[in-house]
Amino acid sequence: MFERKFESFIGCCDDYQNSQLVICGAPFDSTTSYRPGARFGSSAIRHESYGIELYSPYQDKEISDFFIFDAGDIELPFGSCERTLDILQDAADVILSDGKIPLMLGGEHLVSLAAIRAAAKQFPDLRIIHFDAHADLRDEYLGQSLSHASVMRRSWDILGDGKIFQFGIRSGDKSEFEWARDHVYMCRFDFSKLEEIIKKLKGYPIYLTIDLDVLDSGIFCGTGTPEAGGVSFLELLEAIFKVSKLNIIGADMVELAPNLDPSGASTALACKLLREMIIALLSNK
Amino acid sequence: MFERKFESFIGCCDDYQNSQLVICGAPFDSTTSYRPGARFGSSAIRHESYGIELYSPYQDKEISDFFIFDAGDIELPFGSCERTLDILQDAADVILSDGKIPLMLGGEHLVSLAAIRAAAKQFPDLRIIHFDAHADLRDEYLGQSLSHASVMRRSWDILGDGKIFQFGIRSGDKSEFEWARDHVYMCRFDFSKLEEIIKKLKGYPIYLTIDLDVLDSGIFCGTGTPEAGGVSFLELLEAIFKVSKLNIIGADMVELAPNLDPSGASTALACKLLREMIIALLSNK
Amino acid sequence: MFERKFESFIGCCDDYQNSQLVICGAPFDSTTSYRPGARFGSSAIRHESYGIELYSPYQDKEISDFFIFDAGDIELPFGSCERTLDILQDAADVILSDGKIPLMLGGEHLVSLAAIRAAAKQFPDLRIIHFDAHADLRDEYLGQSLSHASVMRRSWDILGDGKIFQFGIRSGDKSEFEWARDHVYMCRFDFSKLEEIIKKLKGYPIYLTIDLDVLDSGIFCGTGTPEAGGVSFLELLEAIFKVSKLNIIGADMVELAPNLDPSGASTALACKLLREMIIALLSNK
Amino acid sequence: MFERKFESFIGCCDDYQNSQLVICGAPFDSTTSYRPGARFGSSAIRHESYGIELYSPYQDKEISDFFIFDAGDIELPFGSCERTLDILQDAADVILSDGKIPLMLGGEHLVSLAAIRAAAKQFPDLRIIHFDAHADLRDEYLGQSLSHASVMRRSWDILGDGKIFQFGIRSGDKSEFEWARDHVYMCRFDFSKLEEIIKKLKGYPIYLTIDLDVLDSGIFCGTGTPEAGGVSFLELLEAIFKVSKLNIIGADMVELAPNLDPSGASTALACKLLREMIIALLSNK
Amino acid sequence: MFERKFESFIGCCDDYQNSQLVICGAPFDSTTSYRPGARFGSSAIRHESYGIELYSPYQDKEISDFFIFDAGDIELPFGSCERTLDILQDAADVILSDGKIPLMLGGEHLVSLAAIRAAAKQFPDLRIIHFDAHADLRDEYLGQSLSHASVMRRSWDILGDGKIFQFGIRSGDKSEFEWARDHVYMCRFDFSKLEEIIKKLKGYPIYLTIDLDVLDSGIFCGTGTPEAGGVSFLELLEAIFKVSKLNIIGADMVELAPNLDPSGASTALACKLLREMIIALLSNK
Amino acid sequence: MFERKFESFIGCCDDYQNSQLVICGAPFDSTTSYRPGARFGSSAIRHESYGIELYSPYQDKEISDFFIFDAGDIELPFGSCERTLDILQDAADVILSDGKIPLMLGGEHLVSLAAIRAAAKQFPDLRIIHFDAHADLRDEYLGQSLSHASVMRRSWDILGDGKIFQFGIRSGDKSEFEWARDHVYMCRFDFSKLEEIIKKLKGYPIYLTIDLDVLDSGIFCGTGTPEAGGVSFLELLEAIFKVSKLNIIGADMVELAPNLDPSGASTALACKLLREMIIALLSNK
Repeated sequence: MFERKFESFIGCCDDYQNSQLVICGAPFDSTTSYRPGARFGSSAIRHESYGIELYSPYQDKEISDFFIFDAGDIELPFGSCERTLDILQDAADVILSDGKIPLMLGGEHLVSLAAIRAAAKQFPDLRIIHFDAHADLRDEYLGQSLSHASVMRRSWDILGDGKIFQFGIRSGDKSEFEWARDHVYMCRFDFSKLEEIIKKLKGYPIYLTIDLDVLDSGIFCGTGTPEAGGVSFLELLEAIFKVSKLNIIGADMVELAPNLDPSGASTALACKLLREMIIALLSNK
Repeated sequence: MFERKFESFIGCCDDYQNSQLVICGAPFDSTTSYRPGARFGSSAIRHESYGIELYSPYQDKEISDFFIFDAGDIELPFGSCERTLDILQDAADVILSDGKIPLMLGGEHLVSLAAIRAAAKQFPDLRIIHFDAHADLRDEYLGQSLSHASVMRRSWDILGDGKIFQFGIRSGDKSEFEWARDHVYMCRFDFSKLEEIIKKLKGYPIYLTIDLDVLDSGIFCGTGTPEAGGVSFLELLEAIFKVSKLNIIGADMVELAPNLDPSGASTALACKLLREMIIALLSNK
Repeated sequence: MFERKFESFIGCCDDYQNSQLVICGAPFDSTTSYRPGARFGSSAIRHESYGIELYSPYQDKEISDFFIFDAGDIELPFGSCERTLDILQDAADVILSDGKIPLMLGGEHLVSLAAIRAAAKQFPDLRIIHFDAHADLRDEYLGQSLSHASVMRRSWDILGDGKIFQFGIRSGDKSEFEWARDHVYMCRFDFSKLEEIIKKLKGYPIYLTIDLDVLDSGIFCGTGTPEAGGVSFLELLEAIFKVSKLNIIGADMVELAPNLDPSGASTALACKLLREMIIALLSNK
Repeated sequence: MFERKFESFIGCCDDYQNSQLVICGAPFDSTTSYRPGARFGSSAIRHESYGIELYSPYQDKEISDFFIFDAGDIELPFGSCERTLDILQDAADVILSDGKIPLMLGGEHLVSLAAIRAAAKQFPDLRIIHFDAHADLRDEYLGQSLSHASVMRRSWDILGDGKIFQFGIRSGDKSEFEWARDHVYMCRFDFSKLEEIIKKLKGYPIYLTIDLDVLDSGIFCGTGTPEAGGVSFLELLEAIFKVSKLNIIGADMVELAPNLDPSGASTALACKLLREMIIALLSNK
Repeated sequence: MFERKFESFIGCCDDYQNSQLVICGAPFDSTTSYRPGARFGSSAIRHESYGIELYSPYQDKEISDFFIFDAGDIELPFGSCERTLDILQDAADVILSDGKIPLMLGGEHLVSLAAIRAAAKQFPDLRIIHFDAHADLRDEYLGQSLSHASVMRRSWDILGDGKIFQFGIRSGDKSEFEWARDHVYMCRFDFSKLEEIIKKLKGYPIYLTIDLDVLDSGIFCGTGTPEAGGVSFLELLEAIFKVSKLNIIGADMVELAPNLDPSGASTALACKLLREMIIALLSNK
Repeated sequence: MFERKFESFIGCCDDYQNSQLVICGAPFDSTTSYRPGARFGSSAIRHESYGIELYSPYQDKEISDFFIFDAGDIELPFGSCERTLDILQDAADVILSDGKIPLMLGGEHLVSLAAIRAAAKQFPDLRIIHFDAHADLRDEYLGQSLSHASVMRRSWDILGDGKIFQFGIRSGDKSEFEWARDHVYMCRFDFSKLEEIIKKLKGYPIYLTIDLDVLDSGIFCGTGTPEAGGVSFLELLEAIFKVSKLNIIGADMVELAPNLDPSGASTALACKLLREMIIALLSNK
């Protein structure tokens, strides 16, 4: 009669061996410079996912049609970026080596760097598609080279020019926008150039990183630095569907801060988006 | 100098006899499976209505131009669906028998079933127009046949095939969407087919049920299961204006949960929408 | 490297067979007449328990010194008291039959009735010790005989006169206080008579039910009907330690409503109290 | 079947003519210098009173045993102290002239001045008992002579030396404490001298004004300037019981700011305290 | 090593003499009839501005490229409109006389009247551009002629017919909309006629007043009377850019109520909008 | 007319040179393992201090009677403990070398280590008095040796056995309590042994560190790990007064997390306590 209860994102209850995609939570926000709380993001998404359905009316499929393992939150040391990144990189390495898609749930955006490092080792031809309100291209931030605000710059350190494709960017230092011109592709404010870029990226291994603050702050207030003037939920959903047609080898969704979401609407949105994203990624495999 | 203060929605202070439309609150949310609070919806709408004006600039009319009685909240037993539905059905029966329009304020969506039962008895030709994010077509939910998630299925039990017209639906079990194909009309995601349907429904007695979560969660977070990807306030307003041209014999507005609306913006929206809906309904009589 | 994560109260991760005490969550609040939310109580306690230590400096023991199984939350049908009580009673029956102590986490106070029914069957000599702000002795409430406000009256239906011992009571109808005189022992406002009663109850099988609103609303605001003028945390702790010396065969802790605890302090208190209560109960076995 | 619903504090539903005591709400907070919201206090107390019982276990009486009229909230012009005070004074005048006890619900503390002005006219021998964390003795505050921070000083303007008795005071300018020595009786921090003073005030007509921030901020956070180090609920209750033995001709309870009470515990406390205060006042008539 | 910290809006740290534009906060909300809190608006904008960047990707300029002085919040007497308006008018007078642009941060909308009075004295040909959800054209409100709801009517008293141009208006009394026809230009609901009006206003000195509730309540809930059906952030931004090409001699931004913005998204939006507005105003000088 | 506004704790507006005591904010919480937000503590205390008076009725003195400089918040790199501690230690070094008392406002408890390191260098005979709910004696926490949970252990690394005196401790690992027996003085739960210890510490240079969670969670909920069963405000105040008679050469107050204080009562308490602490410290110099 009595069995242990497992924690998992709804419908993601397969075991590791059989899974095509592995969710792992990265509850870290120590470099968040303004309002912390992203550390609670992955846990809140998992917990609140029981308020949504398995079925996507957008894609006419159920998340339970696929094989997915949710590894829960990885235990991380607060206050130490280096060790945190090492632990997360090891996890991504294992998943990638086993031929599965790692899907990391933040936590703050810096955690993406760990997965990108692992992915770049295994896929030398890696390209990054980056949805975000912020350029995240600073060379350092408050004297730190490892920071949520420099995560794309650190990724560039590994990949070099022309490998990073940014969409929705509407905030950053002047120097970031200037530097971007020579080193990355940046589509400011929206997804207007997404189809054009997708054509160019056919065949490449792609890491997709989604900072949820790419959404307009009207529809997504539960994040540390909400930004007005962003994309709508349906625009983001459409963009994910398009990108999912590419060869996505890893992905993440970061920066939900549930403590800044008093109504719960941002957390509910993140759950729904994650369901759609997983179905889209696996439908194209 | 000192008189008793009455509770009513702003401008709805006529007596029962003279009224064309009767508001009654149904403070019930016992089958809410996720986040309760809709029980406080009707009371909050009434209380907060003093923050809005009598005048609609959209329709260039005042709500006080019409005869409306607000019966306040009906006392209901928490924890007993059956008795709750009986009490509410009796109330709707009396209002309909007296040739008035019942306008029920939820509470959760299950309360609509009481009014629909009463309406179906008096109007055998009844049709239902249903605005919602959720299909509400489950045959049972958590083992219960009476539930907010099955309210349209229970209505179908009474009315049969082809009588229920759903708009804005973007969430539900796979089985609900499949079942819908054969039994009800469902316009997914939006109101794109509304005008077409309205033409077909000319002359029929119509019950209009509005679950406020049909709105995008960005504009309406104060509800138990907020759903991104919904319609805008102006789209909903426009849809109500169009539907009001039909022969509406009863209506409701459900699922505001003011406890999930920390800024008060959802409650303010509901007040404004109710003012517009009442004016629209009565302008076409 | 990747293992499934289990949900449990901190340090309660043994398996069912070996356990001396079994925690089960009863996420039900459908009869709550005022402010719902107790349904989230057990889950919040489990989730937040990771913010407290295993060790009790009050008792100089660790919770991990004992064998405890946390069965998680039992799935319950909202809107149906009868079925809910049946499901919970079955669970308590099994635990008691297996010679273990059931420790139910509410949910609203009505859930205690299920465990009390099970306990009374197995222990005909059962006595109840009841800590609460409210008498809960109504014969019916809003027309319902099954309600949080009548849980002790329904328990009396089973046990009869002189078997229920109430402490901390400071709220109720006049008729409840009058009825109490002839049928139960009631110590109003505090624990002043607790030691006296404990002496009388030596040897009897005892079910201990704790409605957390027995605490002063200054220290415990996260509950549906917070009541000023209650006992302090240390007074309640002391009372639990004293009662634990008796032969406690089952227990519960109910009415934490984490949605009414914006600072998290009530939830933290409940976690700590539960740790102390479990250690105290098992130290005396 | 359908009747208009009245707004009243629970159990206070007699008509004006028969009533012994008249509640009127004074929803004003325009001079609040720090955090506004007391304007919502009276309305919240009335609304939330349905969560408490009619019966007082402290006094073994029910509020419905007495004749009480609740006049609801008086409509007041925000931004104009003078007109607000005039309107409130007129109301108090009528109530006092009719031989009834006015019980004003704030709003901010300045509203007490209106009732005190009316009372002083009809009772030249008037004494004031004042429970508060703050001395409220400033001659002016931010350049205004009419302010919540000067309400007792303005009362002294009318009554003169030795007529005002303050308890619980623990905050104010140095000049207020110095001025107090020569002009009013001030018992700092607590009620230690209350019995002594009560003996001296036997026979005098008394106006009792209670600023709820006299309570410790741990038990009463829902107020504009919460002050730690205050009295407990039971101490305040006891003080009210003692004072009620005197000849209370008018009273008020001010400074609940429900917008600063996210858990609802302060509002619940205020409801309970008001029930006890009314029963105590009328039991001694 | 240790220096005093100054309070200023980000990047506005020049001294008064050199500045082209002077920010001053007007922390006043005493006539707010519904939900107060706008008094905290200017302070919150200043405080939270450290979460945004100096750089505008919309205009490709940094706010630090210009000379701006932030005078902080002006100390104002709560409860006295007249004195408040005098103090603010004096401040605006000095700034205008010194050939600088005053940019007032509310506070409630009434504070605009002070700056408009000062501007009208120095610019007899003054025109007002007014973005708002509310007409603010009442002759009096709750018996007061000075109120947030009458601020444009009071401005008309000074300027006369045909000088005030309103956009986005979607709420008000019927009489306001009727009166508007003969006395002001009103573009209801949106900015559809803005370009047309801008052509007519070339060359005139313009005072620009922005009530932030012109925004849709979905994107801006942090205000006393949030109104659904409003403009989007990008529409407002575009409108500001267009208007800034005119000869703006003074401006304000009012009615952020940060206490009604639990997620912080409205405050973040106001910061960003203020940065864009300042850059736009000064880029066209 | 227009002057720059300074940020300071109320009444602490002297310049550095003349000051006896220097306040500096340490907005750091990167090692907080549970609920972050202490980073906002110092800023909130400063901002909200304008809601309290300069005058202490407890000590009959005003804070403006003393010479105090508030250096504002020190800019710190999130995510780097080592650099943060270095920056803070440098600041404390300068203040101590200049013969002034450093009073650090947290931020999390780890920041105390910086000041203690500086103090220990200048005062080899240093003793620490530590008020806290938590022992903070772990050798490492989540693999980190620098953590809020190990701050007293790291202080012991510097000072050695018998130099640290802890009061109010009621939470920690079993190993911390065991280790404590041989290395520090620990008074569990309360201040019962404080006077005894004070006698022994006469003449020694003392660093006083106050983690505000030593307070009962009923009176102080606004902190990351609120703990029931703590001391009252008046007990803490009394303890501070007693300790202030010793030779206090530095002090701090840490762990206010204003984001967890929705009513503002904890922040108000911290402001008041800081005023009292500063007056007490300087009255005994």
